[in-house]
Amino acid sequence: MKNINASIITIGDELLIGQTIDTNSAWIGQELNKIGVWLKRRVAVGDVWDDIWNALDAESKESDIIIITGGLGPTADDITKPLLCKYFGGKLIVNEDVLNHVKYLFDKVYRRPGPMLERNLKQAEVPDVCKVLHNARGTAPGMWFEKDGRIYVSLPGVPHEMKGLMTNEVLSRIPKYFDLPFIIHRTAFTMGTGESMIAEKIKDFETNLPEHIKLAYLPGYGMVKLRLTAKGDDKEKMEKELDEKFSVLKELVSEWLVTDKDENLATVVTKILKEKNKTIGTAESCTGGYIAHLITSNPGSSVGYKGSIISYANDVKEKILGVSDKTLRTVGAVSEETVIQMVKGAIEKLNVDFVVATSGIMGPDGGTDEKPVGTVWIAAGNKGEVETAKLAFRFDRERNIEMTSHTALNFLRKFILANT
Amino acid sequence: MKNINASIITIGDELLIGQTIDTNSAWIGQELNKIGVWLKRRVAVGDVWDDIWNALDAESKESDIIIITGGLGPTADDITKPLLCKYFGGKLIVNEDVLNHVKYLFDKVYRRPGPMLERNLKQAEVPDVCKVLHNARGTAPGMWFEKDGRIYVSLPGVPHEMKGLMTNEVLSRIPKYFDLPFIIHRTAFTMGTGESMIAEKIKDFETNLPEHIKLAYLPGYGMVKLRLTAKGDDKEKMEKELDEKFSVLKELVSEWLVTDKDENLATVVTKILKEKNKTIGTAESCTGGYIAHLITSNPGSSVGYKGSIISYANDVKEKILGVSDKTLRTVGAVSEETVIQMVKGAIEKLNVDFVVATSGIMGPDGGTDEKPVGTVWIAAGNKGEVETAKLAFRFDRERNIEMTSHTALNFLRKFILANT
Repeated sequence: MKNINASIITIGDELLIGQTIDTNSAWIGQELNKIGVWLKRRVAVGDVWDDIWNALDAESKESDIIIITGGLGPTADDITKPLLCKYFGGKLIVNEDVLNHVKYLFDKVYRRPGPMLERNLKQAEVPDVCKVLHNARGTAPGMWFEKDGRIYVSLPGVPHEMKGLMTNEVLSRIPKYFDLPFIIHRTAFTMGTGESMIAEKIKDFETNLPEHIKLAYLPGYGMVKLRLTAKGDDKEKMEKELDEKFSVLKELVSEWLVTDKDENLATVVTKILKEKNKTIGTAESCTGGYIAHLITSNPGSSVGYKGSIISYANDVKEKILGVSDKTLRTVGAVSEETVIQMVKGAIEKLNVDFVVATSGIMGPDGGTDEKPVGTVWIAAGNKGEVETAKLAFRFDRERNIEMTSHTALNFLRKFILANT
Repeated sequence: MKNINASIITIGDELLIGQTIDTNSAWIGQELNKIGVWLKRRVAVGDVWDDIWNALDAESKESDIIIITGGLGPTADDITKPLLCKYFGGKLIVNEDVLNHVKYLFDKVYRRPGPMLERNLKQAEVPDVCKVLHNARGTAPGMWFEKDGRIYVSLPGVPHEMKGLMTNEVLSRIPKYFDLPFIIHRTAFTMGTGESMIAEKIKDFETNLPEHIKLAYLPGYGMVKLRLTAKGDDKEKMEKELDEKFSVLKELVSEWLVTDKDENLATVVTKILKEKNKTIGTAESCTGGYIAHLITSNPGSSVGYKGSIISYANDVKEKILGVSDKTLRTVGAVSEETVIQMVKGAIEKLNVDFVVATSGIMGPDGGTDEKPVGTVWIAAGNKGEVETAKLAFRFDRERNIEMTSHTALNFLRKFILANT
């Protein structure tokens, strides 16, 4: 069986100038992988005719499937559609289905007053050499081309439109064209140690892995994910072998293991709360609501999460959470005493079983010799007991907030497990 | 003057498999642009020898500067350093400065117990044909190669390490090697209408722009940024011309204009608060702390932002914010009455001048016929007055949260401007 490779070409100056972060490619990579297609290359080019054309030529030499995103909007800096038309030797024609869909969206969904603009009507023009893919979530249709045994798919760059098209139109069609191998992953999610320490611990395991099973380290915010990937034809045999290896790996890293599924920390916490029928809240100062956001990003978080008090100003710490004026005046807001009182106050005010609290200096300003930027106190507790930890990060503001939030949420997870 | 182009090559299976989102490239693109280098292409390849080698060959044909990120960690899936050594015809030698720095980090900063691991010591090995760039933020050094009039820079993939190296070592060196043009941008940030409507409004303006000034549409969450870019040699003349065009553009889109600087919405709000010496808080249900996070992501937000009450559960809405039991029982949490009471309660509890409140159904579950997923009520107010709006989104949970948060924050901005 031949390996089926894919390339992604993203089109748009906004990606090169750095005003947009490309989240599409990661998602596409994941989805292709699940159906046994290996994403070999990702290329981003600007809104420049020659650059797009050359990228199409180059990726055609590398891959069997070329996914093109972006460059399909209604405004004038988009040149993708005429280019694809020429590249595949067709001409632009109005597609009636797309035209009706665009009209429907403008009349019934967007409810725009007045007549439709010509540039919106142009969205209904497609090359006559492609199969049109229905975009239920927007006006720009997807386009499917075939040439020399390769597949080319052009999709809008707006993430939720692209995802809808991939899910409903593209991913199910690809296996009809290629004989795909199985790719299976197992992911162990660890927190509390570094990549090197884990690598040392699993050195022998890694060395003895068979050729068709690969191990990857995926470091994140205070965490390391270890991913085993097997590729082959005999799905059942592969699953069995991979599960055996994965059991050994999990045992080796058990002291740091958060979950053996590819899920995020907040989901793990939500599952624990559901299982134990407990509730939580957060009392955040320096993380400014980011822990609450991590939790509520997950569907179903309302089961165990009741709410948060974000006490950025000291008088909110005092007035709502009951942190004592004396504590704030003597040891200050970034102190063990403060986070302990924040936990106690929030448990009472939010009427929850557990609370995690944070107070620290995220930077770039606000640091002192005694408490430099990156100094953080966290606390987790229930009605009877509160545990604390002092952290010290040396990153920029964004990363300090993310590191503090993830560390605090893991601290809460451990406290809940130890105290129920 | 010749245009100086750059390519970014990111290395790592984690980018292709989709477990890491590439935020580095956007940042690098922005920084290169500021010094007059145009990012022509971005390429991501896996941890595969031939793929990396071929990418180096291909990008050497496209660009003058090749920035390579990733593939330098201490674990075994990294092959970049030996490859670069071979590509540039050198051999690996231990660099004493790097070795001392690695030892210092482990002893004094990370405070790891026990002897250092061999894999960490290996970080001090560098090709003898490169200039070593000091990585103050981590163990993997940057490497600067020159070949056939081109520059190749290899940097670690960890964002804050990469950023430190770019800022301190790379960006200042590039202008010494190339004669760079000036690139100037002006960005108008609009909210409240779509790309097509704006395009229609500025059609004539766009058509009449000179060749050396380009206009780009950058759509985001409920917003459209309009970026004018001029490129040339005579900085003073260019600045003057661009400012003139930009004034015309701003006038054309004035009804939707949020700011004429390239800054985010939360920064705009923080500036208004500082200027008017006012304070705000948020009372969030469905956005779950994301508005608070948007605000507190900005350094200096503590000036006007005091805190938030995240009332995910109804009894938190009742107990802390004082939303009436009757309101929750009769019209429900997702209602105009509820968000009005949330605003009033939070103004009192947080002791602030203005509050914005949100309550809605973010999905994927929880929708009803009467209130489908995407139904949201928002409110903004002060002690005397509260304004409300009903929103309806049709996206996934993540995007519903982001759209609601940005729309609500803009609603608050307008309320503050109209009521001070």
